[in-house]
Amino acid sequence: MDKLFIIKIGGNIIDDEKKLLSFLKAFASIEGNKVLVHGGGKLATKMAEQMNVPQQVVEGRRITDGETLKIVTMVYAGYINKNIVAKLQMNNCNAIGLCGADGDAILAHKRKHAVIDYGYVGDVDGINAGLISNLLEKNLTPVFAPITHDQEGQLLNTNADTIAQELAKGMSNDFEVQLIYSFEKAGVLLDAEDDATVIPVIIPSYYKKLKAEEKIFAGMIPKLDNAFAALNSGVKKVIIGKAENLKELIAGKSGTSITNE
Amino acid sequence: MDKLFIIKIGGNIIDDEKKLLSFLKAFASIEGNKVLVHGGGKLATKMAEQMNVPQQVVEGRRITDGETLKIVTMVYAGYINKNIVAKLQMNNCNAIGLCGADGDAILAHKRKHAVIDYGYVGDVDGINAGLISNLLEKNLTPVFAPITHDQEGQLLNTNADTIAQELAKGMSNDFEVQLIYSFEKAGVLLDAEDDATVIPVIIPSYYKKLKAEEKIFAGMIPKLDNAFAALNSGVKKVIIGKAENLKELIAGKSGTSITNE
Repeated sequence: MDKLFIIKIGGNIIDDEKKLLSFLKAFASIEGNKVLVHGGGKLATKMAEQMNVPQQVVEGRRITDGETLKIVTMVYAGYINKNIVAKLQMNNCNAIGLCGADGDAILAHKRKHAVIDYGYVGDVDGINAGLISNLLEKNLTPVFAPITHDQEGQLLNTNADTIAQELAKGMSNDFEVQLIYSFEKAGVLLDAEDDATVIPVIIPSYYKKLKAEEKIFAGMIPKLDNAFAALNSGVKKVIIGKAENLKELIAGKSGTSITNE
Repeated sequence: MDKLFIIKIGGNIIDDEKKLLSFLKAFASIEGNKVLVHGGGKLATKMAEQMNVPQQVVEGRRITDGETLKIVTMVYAGYINKNIVAKLQMNNCNAIGLCGADGDAILAHKRKHAVIDYGYVGDVDGINAGLISNLLEKNLTPVFAPITHDQEGQLLNTNADTIAQELAKGMSNDFEVQLIYSFEKAGVLLDAEDDATVIPVIIPSYYKKLKAEEKIFAGMIPKLDNAFAALNSGVKKVIIGKAENLKELIAGKSGTSITNE
């Protein structure tokens, strides 16, 4: 099977123009099949302030009301997505920017929650692997903004980590998929403040031990649980590490590799 | 050769949610190959006001400074484009939203003008017919926002009429193209205030006569000049008419048909 890299880039890199350009240059230079998934960064919050749209946060989660949906659609699927595409084109990578509605790429539904109404937030049901394979065959590089739709005309704000994971799972029948979460840290760390304490490899038995000994930063546990879920759905490898080291992450020379073996 | 409809929808329809939905339903029901090109409407101006970004207009043309480019990218390529795509998906039309940077679909350069600096405005050099043919072959319906790029990382604000015309010209080697400009008027009118005075067919000799007798509304002349230029570049037919009559326009039962024969 052909290799496919699905790479998620975190919001804080998107907020830093210089780091973003350097990341996109490295991304463009990856040979073969690749997909980029980007988050939103702080621009949507800034835009909401500028437009006097108050942001509701319940239990640490932003509530996506109608006005907020409009803002994230503009910022994520418009400004950020198209700027990333233009910069990749500049670096000879034939990028094509998509949200989940485009080509019906991602199937989602509005989140139902017994207590909290999250508003226009999407939970992903699956992906359109055929569409993405067709684009990759034509040497196009899909760039996903974290907006999906419900197939009934409603756009939905959707977590970019989840989109990356669902894409990785959905493409695993046709490709040997590596899922890379690139962010500001060097990987999964034993000491959250010290990049030198990065754990190079985590296999299930070691993860169990790390969790039992409470050696993993709590915020990292959902990411790792998701990583193992992805592996169990056919993804070959999950790598977590620093966006600035993208080439080394791809080569397995940096970050944390999460595998079943 | 297969038929291809390239349909431009004007800004005033985009501003009217009910009319837009009805238009999109009619568009979705067109069988075979089709491409939609949309303008911007008043939303970008409204957004600029809300964000306190002053809009400069020189000789009736908006100057696209950096902040204005950001707004039009957000509004045209983000909010409007993705909402149109979601609504077409709802109507079982497998739409894919694009700007000129996506898949390098439209090649443009920043406008150079001896006197006026229009800012980040793009003039179109050509289109990527291969990409669009590939998408159409996969039963995807491209939906273009009027934003292009210069292949050097710069997005550019671009006239939607021009994009529609360039797409029509560029696709004419591979398809029998009909270019449809749908807007608020019933077609080319002898009396601009009276929809009943629509001219059903204009051929070059008749156009010459109409212009000589000053029977054509001045604002319509650039549109008609462009229409004849498109015909001379291989486009089969250009139709101008009311967006609400899209099905009748396609069937040649409404609007003004502009042909060389």
